[in-house]
Amino acid sequence: MNYRMIFNILGKIVCVEAAFMLPAMLIAWFSGDRSGALGFGAAICVSLLLGTLFMRLRGRNNRFFARDGFVTVGLTWIVVSALGALPFWISGAIPNYLDCLFETVSGFTTTGATILSDVEKLSPAMLYWRSFTHWLGGMGVLVFMMALSTLTKKNSGESMYLLRAESPGIRITKLAPRMRRSAMILYEIYIGLTLLQIALLLIGRMSLFDAVTLSFGTAGTGGFGVRNDSIASYSPYCQWVITAFMLVFSVNFNIYFLLLLRQFRKAAKNEELRLFLFIVLAATALVAADTAGRYSDFAACLRAAAFQVSSIISTTGYSTVNFDLWPQVSRCVLVLLMFIGACAGSTGGGLKIVRLLVMGKAARRSVFRVLHPNSVCLIHMDGETLDEDTVHAVNTYTVLFCLIFAAATLLMSLNGQSFETTFTAVAACINNVGPGLGAVGPNANFAGLSYFSKLVLTITMLIGRLEIYPILVLFTPTMWKR
Amino acid sequence: MNYRMIFNILGKIVCVEAAFMLPAMLIAWFSGDRSGALGFGAAICVSLLLGTLFMRLRGRNNRFFARDGFVTVGLTWIVVSALGALPFWISGAIPNYLDCLFETVSGFTTTGATILSDVEKLSPAMLYWRSFTHWLGGMGVLVFMMALSTLTKKNSGESMYLLRAESPGIRITKLAPRMRRSAMILYEIYIGLTLLQIALLLIGRMSLFDAVTLSFGTAGTGGFGVRNDSIASYSPYCQWVITAFMLVFSVNFNIYFLLLLRQFRKAAKNEELRLFLFIVLAATALVAADTAGRYSDFAACLRAAAFQVSSIISTTGYSTVNFDLWPQVSRCVLVLLMFIGACAGSTGGGLKIVRLLVMGKAARRSVFRVLHPNSVCLIHMDGETLDEDTVHAVNTYTVLFCLIFAAATLLMSLNGQSFETTFTAVAACINNVGPGLGAVGPNANFAGLSYFSKLVLTITMLIGRLEIYPILVLFTPTMWKR
Repeated sequence: MNYRMIFNILGKIVCVEAAFMLPAMLIAWFSGDRSGALGFGAAICVSLLLGTLFMRLRGRNNRFFARDGFVTVGLTWIVVSALGALPFWISGAIPNYLDCLFETVSGFTTTGATILSDVEKLSPAMLYWRSFTHWLGGMGVLVFMMALSTLTKKNSGESMYLLRAESPGIRITKLAPRMRRSAMILYEIYIGLTLLQIALLLIGRMSLFDAVTLSFGTAGTGGFGVRNDSIASYSPYCQWVITAFMLVFSVNFNIYFLLLLRQFRKAAKNEELRLFLFIVLAATALVAADTAGRYSDFAACLRAAAFQVSSIISTTGYSTVNFDLWPQVSRCVLVLLMFIGACAGSTGGGLKIVRLLVMGKAARRSVFRVLHPNSVCLIHMDGETLDEDTVHAVNTYTVLFCLIFAAATLLMSLNGQSFETTFTAVAACINNVGPGLGAVGPNANFAGLSYFSKLVLTITMLIGRLEIYPILVLFTPTMWKR
Repeated sequence: MNYRMIFNILGKIVCVEAAFMLPAMLIAWFSGDRSGALGFGAAICVSLLLGTLFMRLRGRNNRFFARDGFVTVGLTWIVVSALGALPFWISGAIPNYLDCLFETVSGFTTTGATILSDVEKLSPAMLYWRSFTHWLGGMGVLVFMMALSTLTKKNSGESMYLLRAESPGIRITKLAPRMRRSAMILYEIYIGLTLLQIALLLIGRMSLFDAVTLSFGTAGTGGFGVRNDSIASYSPYCQWVITAFMLVFSVNFNIYFLLLLRQFRKAAKNEELRLFLFIVLAATALVAADTAGRYSDFAACLRAAAFQVSSIISTTGYSTVNFDLWPQVSRCVLVLLMFIGACAGSTGGGLKIVRLLVMGKAARRSVFRVLHPNSVCLIHMDGETLDEDTVHAVNTYTVLFCLIFAAATLLMSLNGQSFETTFTAVAACINNVGPGLGAVGPNANFAGLSYFSKLVLTITMLIGRLEIYPILVLFTPTMWKR
């Protein structure tokens, strides 16, 4: 393991994070939030100190392998979250540090689960920072640094491994020959779409602050809002805009790159995209039919159904109604959507549509093979043959996911809450959704849980966002040997 | 597909089933239960008629492949259940045929989920038949026929494929060179252990009828009782005997065969057995600690914990206390145990310990490979290398299991019951446990569900007992072509 190089990268990222805290500090200062400004100021100082300390460690060699990438990503996310939690703590906005950490990890992992019962009490600077962690975490902290950094020009293997360890999905497509260029393209699309959403929300007469923070939350598919009732009190137009953009940010960004290259046919043929849109339409229709009796007009019913379905499948977690009070079929559909999640290569979480696709095809093949044991039967995706290693990796990932899910649920049950709350709290965190059902439903929050449970869920959120391995390798004994 | 041969085998099994109804008819007759005797008499006539009709179809050739084995097993279990439900229906003991079918499938699949709110109202003949379906289904309907049949001497491939399709687990060990001899050894051990349990219960002053029926329920890891409070009103001695035998019947029968051959060391080294015993001990300790405050003496606490843990991990489903009222940790442990299930090659259900072992090893390897991508890393079990096809088959099975579970839960949610009830009803049926939590808890029953839900659960029970493929192949279009 090239620890010197890992810590060198870590140091740079921590300095970048300090730079990102600067706007929040300015907002705090100009909005008269003295303790907030102090909090951000102190956090910036600590980050810069730590960052420069780490950066003094220069790699003696350039050997950087996949495992180094995983370890870098795992460590980075933990350190960045620990530092990002400082402003909440130092300013006194959230008194307990573990609560601050939960909130920040929930932000960076784009989960959106909160321990705050009254969000509106938070100062604008704190709300801005909370939402900004979503935006940065959505596309990836390291991917961002890569888009900026000139260092990565030297070593393209390094960037490749970092990108692969931080980005969700089963395969990473290189958009450009150079990884740095790929990262830049991704962030250009990301920034462009975010700006478009802000503009459309401003047209709907939303205030600039709300438009920016809610767009950050949508772009990262995070879900932190700035009002206690999430999105319920905004106009139908704004709700539809947010619905549309939650779906937009759940789509693999390669699709947008294909659209930029005018390869419309190839984009339209993408199997993952088709399945994603089919599930969204089917789930919306099912939920709308199931909840129709609760609305006087069809438009409101459809809007609520489409919003909640898009919010959950994109793993954003915004809400316009308290879906915890919906009938069982709708609640069950939403829980299933949590696990399905968004497309790979998007900012959304969950198992990802592409994995569902591969699992479905592998399962169908296993039934087919009972009837035709001697047939050669390959799995195809987008017209190409999927190699068997990928198929096995997807199945192993899902099994590992289930094992971790079971362990986390058992640990969460120590809280003594209902089975529904326990199960959906873990589901909402590991899939980076945010709200669950029952005591952690959309109109409730995670404040009532024990600190042990909060710690379990914090780790679970990181495991979910980084797709297990970058976090698990940190716990393996062989990793710390030598 | 060799349909003529499949139906020929089916015919023989239906005739064997008719023979098995004879004792029940005699019990009905001598206990003065006229309608019961009529019910069994009519069912015997129908079965014999259908059986001889099917048996007239003689195979034109002896070609019998794995797929024929799967189809035979799938069809057999459906037909045998449909006929086994007739006595309940014709006698009027259970008025609706779909309820009768649910109860009989629950019996043969050794689930033990019941739609009866008052079991004690049933006549002795009906109670006997209900428990006997557990006993027969536990070791396998076809395995039984194989142990008897002289026909299988001709074609050992046929027996191998049938045994493989009906027996749970990932690999079938041939106990003897001839499959017929293997089936006989299995049933000899099975009968021997059942008789031992009956004897031990009789020593505990249990009535002969209760001892026989409860031993049938234990041996098949089924869970149908003869009293409304299941096992609660029997003496502590009897409860401990049943606890011990629930575990005995959850162990791979190959272990007993090894013990008969005096290969004690090989038996003690079995990894599946070790993990099974470890889980039982750990879960018992955890549940006992969690529920200790509810008992005045430690013996009662330990007995209740050991009984419930053994009942659920063996997927029997007997109960001595209403564990639905237990604290969350214990309830969560029990739900996890449902999914884990018993050892392969036993009469128990669930995913099976051996699969958990393979999944755990494969998951650990996938983490290890992140750190050491170029290392050759094979998975070992009981000192032997496990071939990769088996590892992939286990992971694919689990993924398919999860997909079916999700689909069944969605269909069950149409019932409008709580998330807990919906989830655990499916878990209790697909893992062949019996009781779940909430409205389908140990002191409740499945009577309140809609007929659609009952049908879904009936199919789910069959899918669980036959390990998915024999049922799923019946639904594939290619199967019915030609």
